Amino acid sequence: MKQTNKLKILNDPIYGFITIPSELIFDLIEHPYFQRLRRISQLGLTYLVYPGAYHTRFHHALGAMFLMGRAVNILKSKGHEITREEEEAVQIAILLHDIGHGPFSHALEYSIVPGVVHEKLSLEFMKILNEQFDGKLSLAIEIFTNKYHKQFLHQLISSQLDMDRLDYLRRDSFYTGVTEGQVNTERLISMLNVADDHIVVDSKGIYSVEKFLVSRRLMYWQVYLHKTVLSAEFLLIQILKRAKDIYSSDLALPAVLKPFVAGTFNKEYKDLIPQYALLDDYDVMAAIKEWTFSSDRVLRSLSEMLINRKLLGVKVSEEIISEKALSLKRKEIQDRFGFTEEEVKYFVFTEPMSNNAYNSNHDGINLLYKNGDLIDIAQASDQLNITALSKPVVKHFLFYPKP
Amino acid sequence: MKQTNKLKILNDPIYGFITIPSELIFDLIEHPYFQRLRRISQLGLTYLVYPGAYHTRFHHALGAMFLMGRAVNILKSKGHEITREEEEAVQIAILLHDIGHGPFSHALEYSIVPGVVHEKLSLEFMKILNEQFDGKLSLAIEIFTNKYHKQFLHQLISSQLDMDRLDYLRRDSFYTGVTEGQVNTERLISMLNVADDHIVVDSKGIYSVEKFLVSRRLMYWQVYLHKTVLSAEFLLIQILKRAKDIYSSDLALPAVLKPFVAGTFNKEYKDLIPQYALLDDYDVMAAIKEWTFSSDRVLRSLSEMLINRKLLGVKVSEEIISEKALSLKRKEIQDRFGFTEEEVKYFVFTEPMSNNAYNSNHDGINLLYKNGDLIDIAQASDQLNITALSKPVVKHFLFYPKP
Amino acid sequence: MKQTNKLKILNDPIYGFITIPSELIFDLIEHPYFQRLRRISQLGLTYLVYPGAYHTRFHHALGAMFLMGRAVNILKSKGHEITREEEEAVQIAILLHDIGHGPFSHALEYSIVPGVVHEKLSLEFMKILNEQFDGKLSLAIEIFTNKYHKQFLHQLISSQLDMDRLDYLRRDSFYTGVTEGQVNTERLISMLNVADDHIVVDSKGIYSVEKFLVSRRLMYWQVYLHKTVLSAEFLLIQILKRAKDIYSSDLALPAVLKPFVAGTFNKEYKDLIPQYALLDDYDVMAAIKEWTFSSDRVLRSLSEMLINRKLLGVKVSEEIISEKALSLKRKEIQDRFGFTEEEVKYFVFTEPMSNNAYNSNHDGINLLYKNGDLIDIAQASDQLNITALSKPVVKHFLFYPKP
Amino acid sequence: MKQTNKLKILNDPIYGFITIPSELIFDLIEHPYFQRLRRISQLGLTYLVYPGAYHTRFHHALGAMFLMGRAVNILKSKGHEITREEEEAVQIAILLHDIGHGPFSHALEYSIVPGVVHEKLSLEFMKILNEQFDGKLSLAIEIFTNKYHKQFLHQLISSQLDMDRLDYLRRDSFYTGVTEGQVNTERLISMLNVADDHIVVDSKGIYSVEKFLVSRRLMYWQVYLHKTVLSAEFLLIQILKRAKDIYSSDLALPAVLKPFVAGTFNKEYKDLIPQYALLDDYDVMAAIKEWTFSSDRVLRSLSEMLINRKLLGVKVSEEIISEKALSLKRKEIQDRFGFTEEEVKYFVFTEPMSNNAYNSNHDGINLLYKNGDLIDIAQASDQLNITALSKPVVKHFLFYPKP
Repeated sequence: MKQTNKLKILNDPIYGFITIPSELIFDLIEHPYFQRLRRISQLGLTYLVYPGAYHTRFHHALGAMFLMGRAVNILKSKGHEITREEEEAVQIAILLHDIGHGPFSHALEYSIVPGVVHEKLSLEFMKILNEQFDGKLSLAIEIFTNKYHKQFLHQLISSQLDMDRLDYLRRDSFYTGVTEGQVNTERLISMLNVADDHIVVDSKGIYSVEKFLVSRRLMYWQVYLHKTVLSAEFLLIQILKRAKDIYSSDLALPAVLKPFVAGTFNKEYKDLIPQYALLDDYDVMAAIKEWTFSSDRVLRSLSEMLINRKLLGVKVSEEIISEKALSLKRKEIQDRFGFTEEEVKYFVFTEPMSNNAYNSNHDGINLLYKNGDLIDIAQASDQLNITALSKPVVKHFLFYPKP
Repeated sequence: MKQTNKLKILNDPIYGFITIPSELIFDLIEHPYFQRLRRISQLGLTYLVYPGAYHTRFHHALGAMFLMGRAVNILKSKGHEITREEEEAVQIAILLHDIGHGPFSHALEYSIVPGVVHEKLSLEFMKILNEQFDGKLSLAIEIFTNKYHKQFLHQLISSQLDMDRLDYLRRDSFYTGVTEGQVNTERLISMLNVADDHIVVDSKGIYSVEKFLVSRRLMYWQVYLHKTVLSAEFLLIQILKRAKDIYSSDLALPAVLKPFVAGTFNKEYKDLIPQYALLDDYDVMAAIKEWTFSSDRVLRSLSEMLINRKLLGVKVSEEIISEKALSLKRKEIQDRFGFTEEEVKYFVFTEPMSNNAYNSNHDGINLLYKNGDLIDIAQASDQLNITALSKPVVKHFLFYPKP
Repeated sequence: MKQTNKLKILNDPIYGFITIPSELIFDLIEHPYFQRLRRISQLGLTYLVYPGAYHTRFHHALGAMFLMGRAVNILKSKGHEITREEEEAVQIAILLHDIGHGPFSHALEYSIVPGVVHEKLSLEFMKILNEQFDGKLSLAIEIFTNKYHKQFLHQLISSQLDMDRLDYLRRDSFYTGVTEGQVNTERLISMLNVADDHIVVDSKGIYSVEKFLVSRRLMYWQVYLHKTVLSAEFLLIQILKRAKDIYSSDLALPAVLKPFVAGTFNKEYKDLIPQYALLDDYDVMAAIKEWTFSSDRVLRSLSEMLINRKLLGVKVSEEIISEKALSLKRKEIQDRFGFTEEEVKYFVFTEPMSNNAYNSNHDGINLLYKNGDLIDIAQASDQLNITALSKPVVKHFLFYPKP
Repeated sequence: MKQTNKLKILNDPIYGFITIPSELIFDLIEHPYFQRLRRISQLGLTYLVYPGAYHTRFHHALGAMFLMGRAVNILKSKGHEITREEEEAVQIAILLHDIGHGPFSHALEYSIVPGVVHEKLSLEFMKILNEQFDGKLSLAIEIFTNKYHKQFLHQLISSQLDMDRLDYLRRDSFYTGVTEGQVNTERLISMLNVADDHIVVDSKGIYSVEKFLVSRRLMYWQVYLHKTVLSAEFLLIQILKRAKDIYSSDLALPAVLKPFVAGTFNKEYKDLIPQYALLDDYDVMAAIKEWTFSSDRVLRSLSEMLINRKLLGVKVSEEIISEKALSLKRKEIQDRFGFTEEEVKYFVFTEPMSNNAYNSNHDGINLLYKNGDLIDIAQASDQLNITALSKPVVKHFLFYPKP
């Protein structure tokens, strides 16, 4: 029987085994568009700080799909109807939710293809796959775009307690070795419920939700916004910007990357996909390796810094870094290395970063009490300072070459 | 060589291996007073709710000693002087800090020996051991009683981040299977430092401390103050009270327990120790098993309830339970079972329970910044509502026989 | 709804959560006969060597039931029919398979009630429960006694890869901290299959089975037959034998234990159960604590040794310990302590212990190949020396008081 | 102080934290030659089968260095003298033992640079680094090449129980999620000892060594020689061979890879290093991505297969695959796709693979008994069939395009 062969099991260091739930999903995973995610690092260049963090978008997508299966089972066991078709659709939707990510996850968006956002690309990928798979992804797309009448299914894909977050927090914590960021996905999922067509948490899960929010914030400052991680990521962005700024046809780089650096890629999403689907981390890194031999001093220096991990220094501040402070630093570096005013901007620059662990305005996490009451975690918790948690914490970063 | 034989290694499911650091400590562990802790459950009757929680005071004391060794190493590596003698003394002090605990940890204190508190007993035990060991525990006792000039050593034994708490939170979380209560002892200890002769935490440990406080509170409400755990513990207390109230010389019970139920035990601590040191969980449980055959209906019923785990029902309330509500409940139960007014009090009663996760007035947790500043976690954290954390949360419990 | 309340979830440090699968099973767990298992240590006195090993028969029985649920699901997913009734029955059978165990698991069988074996008692308990539960355990009993036509169900309860072994190896490894004994129950169960009405293992599971056999043997020599563990267990047996040998009506001991030490217990299994069901570890330990005050020097000394963990020394030998060597040792001890010839036998004695990791004659572990072939692991493995594994390894132990 | 800044701590998901032990080692890790290992996958293309296995040579080298620190401490605590200089040297030697690895670990050796072996390259790298670091690596090189008088130090780097194996088995098991392959490094290391200037294992470690050998073999067949892993690796080799065979100057590929594909690289090791040190996985993968647009049908097809994970089918056999069977298969594929006789060889080919878990002839693992006896594990174990373990198991693989 053909089907049996396709019901494959994958090893996962976190969940043990991930079973692929249907033949259609197996075929989607086999598709080159999805296989491409094997070559895209989940956490960009974070591995330059946490040497275990090489996990990929591919693995995360499978993990989120696994958790979705668990969540669907729990909700069904609590009496909420979810049909076989809806179950497969919501698993497909979470599997493909990040398929639009480019090399190093966010690097291109912030540099050479500024208008292109991965969420819209993911939808475009799904539409093309839907054509190739004879409309079998239509329900998944309805749920993904929140047009399906059962809203709670969409919330499993996108909300403050969605399967995406649950998997990435747990997975990132696991691979970085920042064990304190670990999230008890099993327990959180076992507490999920549905009320008024929304995903809610059984009231006894209050401590688990608190723990989840604290872990999430810890991961932000300790991993996602770690100053050396940001230093690596912004160095990558500067390299790509410089390459674009000085682009000429004899710049050495992989063919598939050329239209993006040259700015000649298709602006229409639908036409962009086939070009975009050829890109991954290897092209960008191979380009940067070529550029360590570039005749352009700026491009060469930046590229060497990344390859040999001689990253920019970082100064973190709670205040905005003043124009004056920035100018002074640029002047100092210009003098030291003999850069022009235009060149120094690639080496000395500022960026703000903000994070709020919880957003109570928009789709808050509600606790479901035995009497049927729904109370926002912000009100229910006597421990967490939800006002503080909801207020974005902003930090300002100044990057510059180390002495 | 005699010494080599004594440097034993013990398996610990949590830390892997615990090495006994010196011959003196080996001999203390071998002493009947310490071996007695093998027969005292760390969490009283919590195992009636969490069936894995049978770990003992013995194991916890060894675990705390292990963590103490780690903490001392970290502090030494940061340049703080701790002599070989101080190291052994502080390990002895933590090893023996709970040696005064009685059967089921707290049951006797709340029932038949109300004036006797385990902290004072622990000190008394140490003094007697000190005599037996020719004064070799003097420094440990000085540190334990905070009379030694290096105060930070005392804080490793007793403060809001002491080795006692670190081990019991981690161990209780492990054995109950409440994995969310897990505390990253390794990381927290690696962040410890000393400033102004006080234990402080390096500033980058802020998220770890936040996580620790959240975990601690979670363990309180999910384990230590879990309503069914309390139901079992108070049932035990009621049994002991009843036995004391109706005591006569033909009440069946183990000989070693007799003076305590009869109220004839020595009131002088020093003379009490040899009597007290014979007691453990087995005596109390064996007595209760005998009492399931008692001719006293109250004692018999209560004992049967505990042995067969037919616990009292519990109602939890944020308000004080009114005299009227209590009377009504007692009346109802009297009518149902035909108890006298005096008898019903053993079955229907109220208790308040309070917990504050953090106490900023008294020996707060201070963060040490690179510029030398010390800031209380209450001020430093923008996330936790320290006002709320510091305010005791009080809950009121009404216990009564289930329908 | 009454039923919902009964579908309880228990925390398990190993599997996370154990859900109680039906109302009938919930009621069986609540029964005093089953609750008694909370007071019987799974590994007897092993905790005197591995201080974490206080887990109980109660917890193990629940764990084995949990694994049974997993195994049934796997087999059903591979197309083998198992009805809802069979599923519940096989879970009940494994839950109750050890309900006949006495205090400290095996101590009584080897001392004061020599003819009574726990397997037969377990069956007797089930029969009595079957009466109390209106025949609802009949199918479970049929499977347990291997009278049901689907033999593979019986093998899940009793064979070389049954759920009993899988749980106890994993659980004992976990609680002792002997992590090398860990068995990957999830993977082994996922490899189970049925052929010719027998439980077999899919051929690709060969390495997992090899690993299982190696782990099992490691647990035998490192835990179950650890010389200090045996020293404690045999000390307990000697104490009980001595108490029986010198029994008179004024020997202090708990009432429920009296008939067993006096030898007046009912020899008819059916009548024995109500007496036997009152016994647990607490009675035995409380008796031994009383006996530390006995006027009989032998009983007193042995009891003090156990309570204060001054265990007998052990000499291990591959050869039978000769009568002469034994006599010499007894003479030496007699001389040292002034024992009579009769008395010294309680302190100096020999025991053989044997273990074979795999038994290929009787219900071997068969591997199922894709072409349908069944091959015994003994033939299939090119690595393990199955001849050696199958041959019992016998070791001889000489116990004696330490200098 | 400059030094303090350099004593960095790295997160490791396996060991928790890895502390860099000295300033010299910090500087070696910072060197571009060592940073290059961040871009070389530890397990080549194994991630195409085990999606978690993206860990790098960089991380493994750090892990092995960490274990070396532990081993040195254990041996010192057992009374064996190891000076501070020797400790650093042996840590450097293990850190650099794999620095000569090329892209995807072994791919180049088997394809385009057949005479070049990574062990000799590692030594060459060390010599160059030794020059750059003013001779500070001389002792490390002496130990690495086994010219130092304390042979046991060399065995910690290279023997059947060296730190290399211990780390890679544990790390590969962790990242693949093949948990059964897990090796208890902590316990094994705690059992190490020195006798006659050789690394031996304390006799009570016999079960741990058995477990280690079984785990090792399990990892071989389940991971290292997994048929789909081999299929990916040999596809990569065929691609590189084809590129070399059809090389012309207009073949698109990264500049640094050109001399190797063209065969113009320096044959003198010393001159080769600077060229070779520029190569990593990214170059090879970027080249293969370019070649998916190649005009050569063979190169294009093979490259597409790898990128889109449409791997070759595999037939495993215990016998040598006959010339005739190979010819028949080639004929079939030629007919199906219209390949020439020369072309089909890239798609249909055979390879033998062998593994022996234990090699008793050469530097066996000896157990040290209390009486000083040394016995080879092959003699000491009554369980493992050492004859079988020592005999290489050979399997033959036939690769061919799937239907």
